[in-house]
Amino acid sequence: MANPTAAMLVIGDEILSGRTRDANMHHLAGRLTVAGIDLVEARVVSDNAGAIIAAVRALSKAYTHVFTSGGIGPTHDDITSDAVAEAMGARIDVRDDALAILTAHYERQGTELNTARMRMARIPEGASLIENPISAAPGFSLGNVHVMAGVPSIFEAMLASLLPSLTGGDPVRSQTLRVERPEGEIATALGALAQSYPDLSFGSYPFISEGIYGSNVVVRGADAARLDEAYARLQAEFIEAVK
Amino acid sequence: MANPTAAMLVIGDEILSGRTRDANMHHLAGRLTVAGIDLVEARVVSDNAGAIIAAVRALSKAYTHVFTSGGIGPTHDDITSDAVAEAMGARIDVRDDALAILTAHYERQGTELNTARMRMARIPEGASLIENPISAAPGFSLGNVHVMAGVPSIFEAMLASLLPSLTGGDPVRSQTLRVERPEGEIATALGALAQSYPDLSFGSYPFISEGIYGSNVVVRGADAARLDEAYARLQAEFIEAVK
Repeated sequence: MANPTAAMLVIGDEILSGRTRDANMHHLAGRLTVAGIDLVEARVVSDNAGAIIAAVRALSKAYTHVFTSGGIGPTHDDITSDAVAEAMGARIDVRDDALAILTAHYERQGTELNTARMRMARIPEGASLIENPISAAPGFSLGNVHVMAGVPSIFEAMLASLLPSLTGGDPVRSQTLRVERPEGEIATALGALAQSYPDLSFGSYPFISEGIYGSNVVVRGADAARLDEAYARLQAEFIEAVK
Repeated sequence: MANPTAAMLVIGDEILSGRTRDANMHHLAGRLTVAGIDLVEARVVSDNAGAIIAAVRALSKAYTHVFTSGGIGPTHDDITSDAVAEAMGARIDVRDDALAILTAHYERQGTELNTARMRMARIPEGASLIENPISAAPGFSLGNVHVMAGVPSIFEAMLASLLPSLTGGDPVRSQTLRVERPEGEIATALGALAQSYPDLSFGSYPFISEGIYGSNVVVRGADAARLDEAYARLQAEFIEAVK
């Protein structure tokens, strides 16, 4: 059976202006591969309600899961929760369960739960909360859309809370062979090998390192025995052949 | 007048599997900000012709420019050039000008221009070439779609060749104030300030660093005098107020 599919939606002007380099996509990609969920597409949009709504609608229809990061804090540019609710046709308001979590957290800290912070208790009707062990304000899952924070440490903690509840398929394993020959020299043989293993996926990722033009050849698949066999053939073809 | 808009399309299984962390989006975002071109959206898709074609069609209709990275090498999984040609309704074949560049390059190196490498001379009809000063094989611009390599050093060199030919608007300047107070404490005042400068954009980006919950407050705009004025008010509001 095919693995469940997923898309990521990164929300934030700071990524698109080049101020910040996104880290959450790379983290999510690695975790989903292990969980047996195929990340098929990722998008980055700005803090713009129309853009978020359009992307959530398109992605939630096309894939099993959508994971979002960013835009759920207390400031005026944090509009993700309201936009996701609108995209999914859900009502949204301050919700008692989220408010109780924030109230307890700020009481422990001796900090005021002011109007701005109350925004973080806005959770769509019907959503289930995603635990935030770092700064309390929860994420949420609404339908197949999982809404998480943008700060990497919080995103990672929320994802760790969420992932065990999602059902994945077979983990995709991979093996990488570093070949110190340019892609142009190995392309024909690699293409032929890829055709003879239609159940596996072969990728070639060129690199330039200390003046050497090389290729990292990666073979991926769920069946460990087939992977080992294909990897042995890659080695024989591209490493032993040049000795 | 509004600045020209842009989207980026990153093509490659290796980003979505978590094997590689994309670097080109962050580089492009920074260069476009300086050039006065607004990066509005970015997408990452796998080495899949249908996915590339759909994304190129959607993005090239929606934005002034589309910049792609990845998938233009000599191996079987390099399908970007053909997919872009199909998306834009152009014919594609080995083109004499690109072939001449490759022939000269491999002659200089004393390397064979084999069938696999000939793939890199496949350029759509009507496209103009983008120079590759590192490994010769050119990128191309077809309509408003600019197709470049995925290897970061080559992507950056191609972008440097291309950018001077594109007309940008006013560079967007920004000033960042580091506030060592959590977003929840500054949100209300920041929102009010943002409303009083509708010509500027205010963003708040939370951080957690050595146990401190803080916010980087960024104000962006094209008018330096207005920026300075708004920044002075930010300082007065959030730094001097806590002394």
